[in-house]
Amino acid sequence: MGDLSGYGGDALKSLKEAGAAIGDVLEAKTPWGEVTGTLVPRYLYGDGDHLVLKLRSGYNVGLRVSGLKGVRVVAKGEKPSFSPPAPPKPAKGLPRVLIIGTGGTIASRIDYRTGAVGPAITAAELYSLVPELSGIAQVHPEIMFDIFSENITPKHWSRLARRVAKAVKEGFDGVVVAHGTDTLGYTAAALSFALAGVPVPVVLVGAQRSSDRPSSDSSLNLIAAVSVAGTARFSGVYVAMHLGESDDKIAFHRGTRVRKNHTSRRDAFVSVDVPLAAVWGRSGLEYVSEGLPARGGAFRPRPRFDGRAALIKFYPSMPAGAIRAARRAGAKALVIEGTGLGHVSKELTKELAAFVKAGGLACMTSQCIEGRVNLNVYDTGRDLIHAGVLPLDDMLSETALAKAMWVIGTGASGARARELMSANVAGETTPRTFPS
Amino acid sequence: MGDLSGYGGDALKSLKEAGAAIGDVLEAKTPWGEVTGTLVPRYLYGDGDHLVLKLRSGYNVGLRVSGLKGVRVVAKGEKPSFSPPAPPKPAKGLPRVLIIGTGGTIASRIDYRTGAVGPAITAAELYSLVPELSGIAQVHPEIMFDIFSENITPKHWSRLARRVAKAVKEGFDGVVVAHGTDTLGYTAAALSFALAGVPVPVVLVGAQRSSDRPSSDSSLNLIAAVSVAGTARFSGVYVAMHLGESDDKIAFHRGTRVRKNHTSRRDAFVSVDVPLAAVWGRSGLEYVSEGLPARGGAFRPRPRFDGRAALIKFYPSMPAGAIRAARRAGAKALVIEGTGLGHVSKELTKELAAFVKAGGLACMTSQCIEGRVNLNVYDTGRDLIHAGVLPLDDMLSETALAKAMWVIGTGASGARARELMSANVAGETTPRTFPS
Repeated sequence: MGDLSGYGGDALKSLKEAGAAIGDVLEAKTPWGEVTGTLVPRYLYGDGDHLVLKLRSGYNVGLRVSGLKGVRVVAKGEKPSFSPPAPPKPAKGLPRVLIIGTGGTIASRIDYRTGAVGPAITAAELYSLVPELSGIAQVHPEIMFDIFSENITPKHWSRLARRVAKAVKEGFDGVVVAHGTDTLGYTAAALSFALAGVPVPVVLVGAQRSSDRPSSDSSLNLIAAVSVAGTARFSGVYVAMHLGESDDKIAFHRGTRVRKNHTSRRDAFVSVDVPLAAVWGRSGLEYVSEGLPARGGAFRPRPRFDGRAALIKFYPSMPAGAIRAARRAGAKALVIEGTGLGHVSKELTKELAAFVKAGGLACMTSQCIEGRVNLNVYDTGRDLIHAGVLPLDDMLSETALAKAMWVIGTGASGARARELMSANVAGETTPRTFPS
Repeated sequence: MGDLSGYGGDALKSLKEAGAAIGDVLEAKTPWGEVTGTLVPRYLYGDGDHLVLKLRSGYNVGLRVSGLKGVRVVAKGEKPSFSPPAPPKPAKGLPRVLIIGTGGTIASRIDYRTGAVGPAITAAELYSLVPELSGIAQVHPEIMFDIFSENITPKHWSRLARRVAKAVKEGFDGVVVAHGTDTLGYTAAALSFALAGVPVPVVLVGAQRSSDRPSSDSSLNLIAAVSVAGTARFSGVYVAMHLGESDDKIAFHRGTRVRKNHTSRRDAFVSVDVPLAAVWGRSGLEYVSEGLPARGGAFRPRPRFDGRAALIKFYPSMPAGAIRAARRAGAKALVIEGTGLGHVSKELTKELAAFVKAGGLACMTSQCIEGRVNLNVYDTGRDLIHAGVLPLDDMLSETALAKAMWVIGTGASGARARELMSANVAGETTPRTFPS
């Protein structure tokens, strides 16, 4: 008996009767004719009425079992096999780039038969699949994790930062980190702080489409990332993702200023409140922003993070207990995503004052995303300043969380932690202009 | 002795010696000459070194007390007085529009002397200040609350919805709600559900600049709101705010699709994932989207909200305790703002499963803001569906929170609550197209 996972009820019964298993090609007799396709697993648990076939067109069709006149197996499925070709040999004299794999879409391969996507491919396979890389750099793929990015934690940030710092010592010309896009912005911010002053380009790269889909962005994103990591004259932490929906330009965003702003578009990532750091086209860098740090220079990584910080988005009627709960759970720092210029209700302001009084670091960002927190305009803001809440200017909430975990990870507390949190460590804020 | 609030240390001492009070015009002798200005209160608590004068130019200047050769009072300040002119008499036969005041910037007046902004003006004063209104509608101003919008709660939403429903019965042609911009999006969504099917236009309006500043947007926003509320041929709940930074077009956003996306720009509000509902120019409506409901029709308000819902933004390493704390605090519904297509970490998925098992309504939106939640692409999403988490398609997180409070406010629970939460009640989601 083959695998029939996800099926139940009448559907399971009829599939068992037909001797079918997931991956088999089935022919189903429907009232309007025969439908042939590959049986795929169900994910809508608990529905026992339908079976799902993947048609040759690539689309799935759900068929109600009670309406079928019969189901038969046309061909048994085979376990999919994949043997990577031998990696092409890179030319000597090319820059050396470390590619760190962490999981995520850029390291995913779709199972054609079932349509399921999972992190399955190794970085070496990736390298084979994108032979253009061999003309750009001597790439050294290395898998550190194989997890979806929503499961990345500050512990992973620390390990990544340490590995990049080691790569700098090993003489790599640049580092690429392949990362799931979900939390790519958080990790980019975290590495920006841990690796402030890094003398080579560190480029985080992801893909919004898995590498086996025709519309995949993973190859071009990776090519641009490796090219810039190996050859750009600037250093620092960046995110490389599609610019626009066309397939010929890659945007490089500053690691502390980037946000995934769309669930699915290939150009989902945007730089907030600052221009792009650079734009790459098929013939190389087409635009480089002024003021990026040059390669080289002294570098002291500070790769420690302390996860005891929380990001809390304010909403109307949020109970003060939400702050108390974070405090009881051991939070040493809070990033509050307030409304507008950085506001919360009166009740919460009181609770934040208590948190600060007990030694906590409370900071304010805005859920507006764009623009700058300003606690000097309204009474509410002034009350927050009086409560000891630190306004974070135009810092993104996600960046602020990573920074708070980094600040307390350095061992700083009290006035020193406030000072470090306010300082512009890695381009995370823009100086206020006068009059603002 | 006059008010010297906010001052301390040497600054307070020297002001006391000079017999000065806030609002007095002072002359300070500085090393580079004399500076004359009005003494304003300090808000940067704890700094005793500076006094702040507002110059005739409107800018404030901070002067270090230790560097001054002397301070003297040039003129005593007077309490500011404001007597509103008698409201102009509206022409007969014009549409009748109820203007509800709630506080916030559109109902604020700056204290010129100190630069402080507070909700101080009544709607009647507003009416007098914007005489153009008398040519557009017979306006009936009514103050319901006078609070900053960050202090608005579901209880206020209920009262507003009931008042609007009553206005419909009273025969008003339209209703305008003047509201602080911080939580304007939340209230607009809430009223959209409570007043689904409302037969007249209900227009929420705010201002990003207080009405006494030269760059104020409050007059034009209000004129557009009253004009559309009184005369538009469509009905429903909308938000009226500046379109672009120029001062001649007002955007009308659907109440369930609008978000404050910038902390301070006059065009801070954007429609997310849908086109604008309408655009108003100085000569009337210039564009109206297809598919808006016409005026009239049957209408049954459902103005009850139950505040026992929480909005929780996921972040890397968020402890599962954050969900448990909400549950212990009595939350009946959770809106989780996941990453990407709607993902959270494995630990949180387990906790959400427990919440659903205990009868809670758990829903998923995306912190990407743009795009659509899809839990069918990755294992993480399918695990969430299996845990009973309801994906909310392209619904905004803020709209989802207001909707959840409304759904449980109707008394719905279990399958009925899930059904209502998934249904498109007030244009809050767009049907998925195939292939998506």
